Amino acid sequence: MAAPTATLLIHCPDQPGLVHSVTGFIFNYQGNVLHLDQHVDRESNVFFMRVEWSLEGFGLPKDIIAAAFKPLADQRQMTWSLHFDNEQRRVALFVTKEGHCLYDLLSRHEAGELPIDIPLIVSNHEVLRPAADRFGIPFVHLPVTAQNKAEQEQRQLDLLAEHGVDTIVLARYMQIVSPKVIDRYTNRILNIHHSFLPAFAGARPYHQAHERGVKLIGATSHYVTADLDQGPIIHQDVARVSHKDSAADMVRMGKDLEKIVLAKALWWHARHKVLVYANKTVVFD
Amino acid sequence: MAAPTATLLIHCPDQPGLVHSVTGFIFNYQGNVLHLDQHVDRESNVFFMRVEWSLEGFGLPKDIIAAAFKPLADQRQMTWSLHFDNEQRRVALFVTKEGHCLYDLLSRHEAGELPIDIPLIVSNHEVLRPAADRFGIPFVHLPVTAQNKAEQEQRQLDLLAEHGVDTIVLARYMQIVSPKVIDRYTNRILNIHHSFLPAFAGARPYHQAHERGVKLIGATSHYVTADLDQGPIIHQDVARVSHKDSAADMVRMGKDLEKIVLAKALWWHARHKVLVYANKTVVFD
Amino acid sequence: MAAPTATLLIHCPDQPGLVHSVTGFIFNYQGNVLHLDQHVDRESNVFFMRVEWSLEGFGLPKDIIAAAFKPLADQRQMTWSLHFDNEQRRVALFVTKEGHCLYDLLSRHEAGELPIDIPLIVSNHEVLRPAADRFGIPFVHLPVTAQNKAEQEQRQLDLLAEHGVDTIVLARYMQIVSPKVIDRYTNRILNIHHSFLPAFAGARPYHQAHERGVKLIGATSHYVTADLDQGPIIHQDVARVSHKDSAADMVRMGKDLEKIVLAKALWWHARHKVLVYANKTVVFD
Amino acid sequence: MAAPTATLLIHCPDQPGLVHSVTGFIFNYQGNVLHLDQHVDRESNVFFMRVEWSLEGFGLPKDIIAAAFKPLADQRQMTWSLHFDNEQRRVALFVTKEGHCLYDLLSRHEAGELPIDIPLIVSNHEVLRPAADRFGIPFVHLPVTAQNKAEQEQRQLDLLAEHGVDTIVLARYMQIVSPKVIDRYTNRILNIHHSFLPAFAGARPYHQAHERGVKLIGATSHYVTADLDQGPIIHQDVARVSHKDSAADMVRMGKDLEKIVLAKALWWHARHKVLVYANKTVVFD
Repeated sequence: MAAPTATLLIHCPDQPGLVHSVTGFIFNYQGNVLHLDQHVDRESNVFFMRVEWSLEGFGLPKDIIAAAFKPLADQRQMTWSLHFDNEQRRVALFVTKEGHCLYDLLSRHEAGELPIDIPLIVSNHEVLRPAADRFGIPFVHLPVTAQNKAEQEQRQLDLLAEHGVDTIVLARYMQIVSPKVIDRYTNRILNIHHSFLPAFAGARPYHQAHERGVKLIGATSHYVTADLDQGPIIHQDVARVSHKDSAADMVRMGKDLEKIVLAKALWWHARHKVLVYANKTVVFD
Repeated sequence: MAAPTATLLIHCPDQPGLVHSVTGFIFNYQGNVLHLDQHVDRESNVFFMRVEWSLEGFGLPKDIIAAAFKPLADQRQMTWSLHFDNEQRRVALFVTKEGHCLYDLLSRHEAGELPIDIPLIVSNHEVLRPAADRFGIPFVHLPVTAQNKAEQEQRQLDLLAEHGVDTIVLARYMQIVSPKVIDRYTNRILNIHHSFLPAFAGARPYHQAHERGVKLIGATSHYVTADLDQGPIIHQDVARVSHKDSAADMVRMGKDLEKIVLAKALWWHARHKVLVYANKTVVFD
Repeated sequence: MAAPTATLLIHCPDQPGLVHSVTGFIFNYQGNVLHLDQHVDRESNVFFMRVEWSLEGFGLPKDIIAAAFKPLADQRQMTWSLHFDNEQRRVALFVTKEGHCLYDLLSRHEAGELPIDIPLIVSNHEVLRPAADRFGIPFVHLPVTAQNKAEQEQRQLDLLAEHGVDTIVLARYMQIVSPKVIDRYTNRILNIHHSFLPAFAGARPYHQAHERGVKLIGATSHYVTADLDQGPIIHQDVARVSHKDSAADMVRMGKDLEKIVLAKALWWHARHKVLVYANKTVVFD
Repeated sequence: MAAPTATLLIHCPDQPGLVHSVTGFIFNYQGNVLHLDQHVDRESNVFFMRVEWSLEGFGLPKDIIAAAFKPLADQRQMTWSLHFDNEQRRVALFVTKEGHCLYDLLSRHEAGELPIDIPLIVSNHEVLRPAADRFGIPFVHLPVTAQNKAEQEQRQLDLLAEHGVDTIVLARYMQIVSPKVIDRYTNRILNIHHSFLPAFAGARPYHQAHERGVKLIGATSHYVTADLDQGPIIHQDVARVSHKDSAADMVRMGKDLEKIVLAKALWWHARHKVLVYANKTVVFD
């Protein structure tokens, strides 16, 4: 079995010697770099970096690495985070009635394809409880109405905290998430929208697509922000359609896109391969 | 060499026995059907059909077929057109300064890939005259200003009529075509827009795409209507981009999409495979 | 709810008036054609047709249609079959240890996406029994060894007959199916092979692909014939890979291709949209 | 205008501190890294790196950089090369009769899309001389027969040397290049093969594809080695086909793939983004 790894995600103002100094930090403690990606946005002059190294023989205990790195990070004005591949993301799945993304994520998880824990499924309907039961994952029914929305969201937040959740996946959850939740989970709520955004934001995108007569339909996974369907895009894909396809056909065909696109985005998120800056993502795939 | 063929394009209210009666017409004159496609739009209850048959041994002379078909067409309330594959579309190319679509179409034409005649290239700039010269095609420079626009469009229309043009291709022509020209060439003006419409209509779509942080860029070929970038879509395709791609990279990569998408749409148009209805296309590919 | 439909699948030597005579048969009994597709293979001069019509108001009872159509079919030397959309395919799933295709098909089936019945899952291992249990579908463990292969296949055939199975799906079943089973289910056994055939037939295709350094990996769904991985191809798709992807990454990424490609092929098969001729398929999608 | 840049391409046995030491070299002379990509092949334990930096303010004159880097390279057992973006690849195009790739490359070159010089077009036929003439590029007709092959190849080599050619592009050149030429231009001869290799190597791949009934056709650009169609793959793409497409249709549709795939591979080659190792490529796109 492979030794555990540490991963640093960094962005900061571009300046000479950044790669050299970060790799120097790792090298000085006898770390062996496994993956290194960097990118400079020339327009905004921002430097992005992801570096993953093996902890085998590394000269610092895990819980001291952050403190040891901090002086360099401060000096270079870095926004940064440190992750360990043996501390998996704890992901809550939010669903409504459509089960294709849920089943897809649960079966991937069970097969060991997705390096995450799923402590909890939250839904505003009972429909998908049997799916959760089959995979032995707690299912909490929190129906949302105009009247109880604030109250139910507080219950959601309590449950998430209780289960140590750090990431929310809206797997076709048909409710708008309020700013309070978004603020708590900034850049940690993934949504799947069933169109190639920015086309067809909002409701019933396949019907909009059918009405417009497009020749491609799409799906988009993005981080949720306060602006509906406007958050940083992580992944998109499309499928070809024709005049033969009704809106119902597009719904059916689109499900394949949605589940693949969402799972891929979650895989990158879980592997700490996504950085967010200026409402865009850098995905070091 | 293959015998010439005739093609009927039809749409009408759906009703029983349509395919039977149209194939009956052809069969009665000993026609041999080569290709038959039909489609029924269940929402609007409209029937679409394309049928192509060999004129070898057909029991009607070419110039009488339309008259012979008319009674059936009238009885069934058909909107229809009749085409012969040895009477090629006469296509005028409109360009400005970008040459990638122009070169692509000219080299396809020269290689015999596109069954069209190109009697004329029209441009509001001189930049691409050498390209036209190399392929021996007349190039007419008609600079357009706010002052002379109406006048120059009349000259365009005169030139098009003079050269027997039946189709206009806007091969990155950076001028808005006026309703007068559009009315004359309804569903016979093809444009290439450098985005996956309806996303990023209007100016500088790659810059809009870069700004939004999409992971796919696209190109769309459509018939031109009075509403800018809103006409019936014929073909679309996309290419994957990443955070590494600047707006300039997207422009470069997008050129490949644009030329392929435009050429494919034109090929379908030239082969009489496109029907337009309710601002959408039926493409019998 | 829509009225039931009947579908004719036909192939025969090409000859004048085929579409006319088949549509005449339907029209004479007041049938309303919903979908009609035809194709002529010019090299072999073979005509293919699929026509689906509504049984609402049709002038023949279901069980007499075949007899009524037979004289025309005989006269035109047709190979043909008649199907009713309310008599669903009964599909047995064969699996080994990999569950991604199985879960995908079961969750589609449960969601009503796939118009089939699944009376039975057969496996040479116990690993996936829990998956079958969760969806309440009988799971039969038939371990296969060199010694008992003939005997176990007879048990398979008995079980299939007992459950009225008409289609077998090899959903990553890692055993070679013997000619005896193939003969009984000609063009009704679908396999998913994890490469873009004909590249990388046989064992460990992703490892072969990685070794060769290809930039695309693929998956192929085909009907099983006596020649391993050589049967008629129904559907294929590919995904982009790079030098960064190990063989293990390709295995992981390939699973997404496999499940989508297999499900799509099965959908076409279930809807009677596939004709086989000369070791190729005509797919009227 | 951007300042000129230098690019190092490196591969060597993996060992700790490689990125740190290379970036240290650049940093010590006040170089500003623009792009840095690295990759470690875990199976063979080989490290690959591409680093590009601005020469503005760099503390070493261009012609001394290589000598200054050599001690580090030797110590780390690097195979390496140094390139400057203002010293463009000099590329000879080899063609036969098909002009689609040639026109595509020439029009890209003229539009400034491809950072290369094209001093020479070589052909074993006269057919494409007019294309060369139109773009003002010398065209040399060297007909090849079984008798004169060795002699003509010597003339090719002389011409290439005379024109300072460092890269050969076989833009649908229908002759097998002999080992003598391949040895001289190792990993600098790009070919476009009209299939998704390794499927359908050899002659008439579209006809092979049609015969097999595949649902995707492809094109592959690779470096030429002594084994026909077996060299390191740089880029591949595919397009969807159906039963409706004859072999001739596939030839037509394939041309679009070929020209895009070849141009993209050449673009990467010209920008020094391709490393070859173990008959595979690392493409830092």
